[in-house]
Amino acid sequence: RQYSSTTRVTLIPGDGIGPEIADSVKKIFSAAKVPIEWDTVNVNAQTGVSDEIIDSIRKNKVGLKGPLATPIGTGHQSLNLALRKTFNLYANVRPCVSIPGFKTRYDDVNTVVIRENTEGEYSGIENQPVKGVAQSIKIITKEASARVANYAFQYALANGRKKVTCVHKANIMKQSDGMFVKTCREVSTRYPSIQYEEMIVDNNCMQLVMSPSKLDVMVLPNLYGDIVSDLCAGLIGGLGLTPSGNIGENGTAIFEAVHGTAPDIAGKGLANPSALLLSGIMMLRHMGLTTHADNIEKAVLTTIAEGKATTKDLGGNAGTQAYTDAVCAKLLNQ
Amino acid sequence: RQYSSTTRVTLIPGDGIGPEIADSVKKIFSAAKVPIEWDTVNVNAQTGVSDEIIDSIRKNKVGLKGPLATPIGTGHQSLNLALRKTFNLYANVRPCVSIPGFKTRYDDVNTVVIRENTEGEYSGIENQPVKGVAQSIKIITKEASARVANYAFQYALANGRKKVTCVHKANIMKQSDGMFVKTCREVSTRYPSIQYEEMIVDNNCMQLVMSPSKLDVMVLPNLYGDIVSDLCAGLIGGLGLTPSGNIGENGTAIFEAVHGTAPDIAGKGLANPSALLLSGIMMLRHMGLTTHADNIEKAVLTTIAEGKATTKDLGGNAGTQAYTDAVCAKLLNQ
Ligand SMILES: CC(C)[C@H](C(=O)O)[C@@H](O)C(=O)O
Ligand SMILES: CC(C)[C@H](C(=O)O)[C@@H](O)C(=O)O
Repeated sequence: RQYSSTTRVTLIPGDGIGPEIADSVKKIFSAAKVPIEWDTVNVNAQTGVSDEIIDSIRKNKVGLKGPLATPIGTGHQSLNLALRKTFNLYANVRPCVSIPGFKTRYDDVNTVVIRENTEGEYSGIENQPVKGVAQSIKIITKEASARVANYAFQYALANGRKKVTCVHKANIMKQSDGMFVKTCREVSTRYPSIQYEEMIVDNNCMQLVMSPSKLDVMVLPNLYGDIVSDLCAGLIGGLGLTPSGNIGENGTAIFEAVHGTAPDIAGKGLANPSALLLSGIMMLRHMGLTTHADNIEKAVLTTIAEGKATTKDLGGNAGTQAYTDAVCAKLLNQ
Repeated sequence: RQYSSTTRVTLIPGDGIGPEIADSVKKIFSAAKVPIEWDTVNVNAQTGVSDEIIDSIRKNKVGLKGPLATPIGTGHQSLNLALRKTFNLYANVRPCVSIPGFKTRYDDVNTVVIRENTEGEYSGIENQPVKGVAQSIKIITKEASARVANYAFQYALANGRKKVTCVHKANIMKQSDGMFVKTCREVSTRYPSIQYEEMIVDNNCMQLVMSPSKLDVMVLPNLYGDIVSDLCAGLIGGLGLTPSGNIGENGTAIFEAVHGTAPDIAGKGLANPSALLLSGIMMLRHMGLTTHADNIEKAVLTTIAEGKATTKDLGGNAGTQAYTDAVCAKLLNQ
């Protein structure tokens, strides 16, 4: 897909702190003169996945999304998941890179989690054949495995990465995870310039906490991807600092902050917009707006590293507005 | 079960480095004058779960086990798992405590993973209904969930622990994990002196890498327990330093080193016996031989902290023999 000089992008502000952080992103993008127009669509428990959001994403192909609250109680599917399924966003991409100037126990994390986003344990097929016995079905298909494996290798090529690690538990789930691994292995032969390895998920989690720099790109079935991406986020400082993208066919993609709606601080001007901002930067790269992405990224990372205008969860005292202003000021000075 | 003054305990040395580390444990236990006699039984790919091992465990009730190689290829079940299933060892217990003097990125880990050990994703029920589609069935029963939940609370009581965290993904697997959580919650009401909380597995892994001291006892379905216990092992230095026990009904239990068979260094006198030794100490506590357990533990931890006679994987230059001698010397001086 080619994007015209001014492109419309769907914005789903979301619940809780969503509107505040979306506002911050809008201000920063306009300070960076990003040539996009926002098509704001509200999605929430009342609207569900409405015709409006379906039309908007179909038309614009690209969206940026804040956190959505999941209605409590069984029977309700998470709206976050519903959006991924509706648009067949098959690859969930979460780069986790140590942020210079934001101190955690790790300074050597530089990995990308590529999670199969449509099947596995998330099939939703469950029942209770007899009282006291519940079963859930995990489904792995060759097609979806090949699709996400190809995406992982293409991503590695496009981003100058050296290695793809397929993470699995095929020593136990010999057929389902076995199919995932076998397919990744087949796909890997088509990318001779990228190193390929396989790692059992328990060992993978141990390696990540002991020597994260051993891992480059990882490709995982849905549930392991869910677990490992949060683990990796933890290594660099948490969900407040990690971008994510859900990638579908033909350029369709929704980028999202994967942290919660933080109802306790919603509306108080205290929210940290970094994860949505970094997701927005991923979105710009996806759209080919690389220079704008680089400029904003530089401004954000400098603001975080300086630590003078960061929000409370990042160790600072600033509110959303002061943080936003600091990033904008850097952009105007660039 | 009461143990007579000299008790027989089954010893499965295992494959690879198994015999060497089992030998080290035997020497150290005898230096500590532990009143047990070893009933050594070889288990391997050829023997499988033989009548001999079944008889020995049935008779002795308690066993200590080195690593076993899993035959490669589909269709073969891991021998480690086969033993757990044969003796219905329903709780896998892995304490992970920062070891003073062994430096990792964390010095504040003090948690116990209690993993349901008989069902979940480990049911082994899988098929390929149509070409290119594989499914695995995860089974959760109320009975097994209640059994392991009760064990976790009893463990917390017996070990002066304050909190039990039930780890799950019931927002996705509403019925299977839902049953696990609901059952843990019910069981928790019978232990009012122990705090109880619930945590989603992805968040749990993030919390563990960011602030492990928030977690005390955790109780988890099989697969999450597998993943989280390796993650926790990584926090304190890896599988070479973590003990584990598989607990069944009426005192039946097999304690095991969960690291691999390390074929590359097998027979060279370089293996680190710590995990088997620490598992042996857990075994002594299980048998009520608390003083012997304390004495050996003190000797091992001092040896590791001093760092003069540790093996290569622990950052030292010593072989198995020198490490063993150092621990024995400390025991004789106590
Ligand atoms: C909110 C939840 C359903 C979701 C998931 O499990 O995928 C979240 O953990 C995520 O990673 O985006
Ligand atoms: C060897 C393997 C089958 C086993 C498991 O998955 O339980 C291991 O990872 C463990 O944790 O003991």
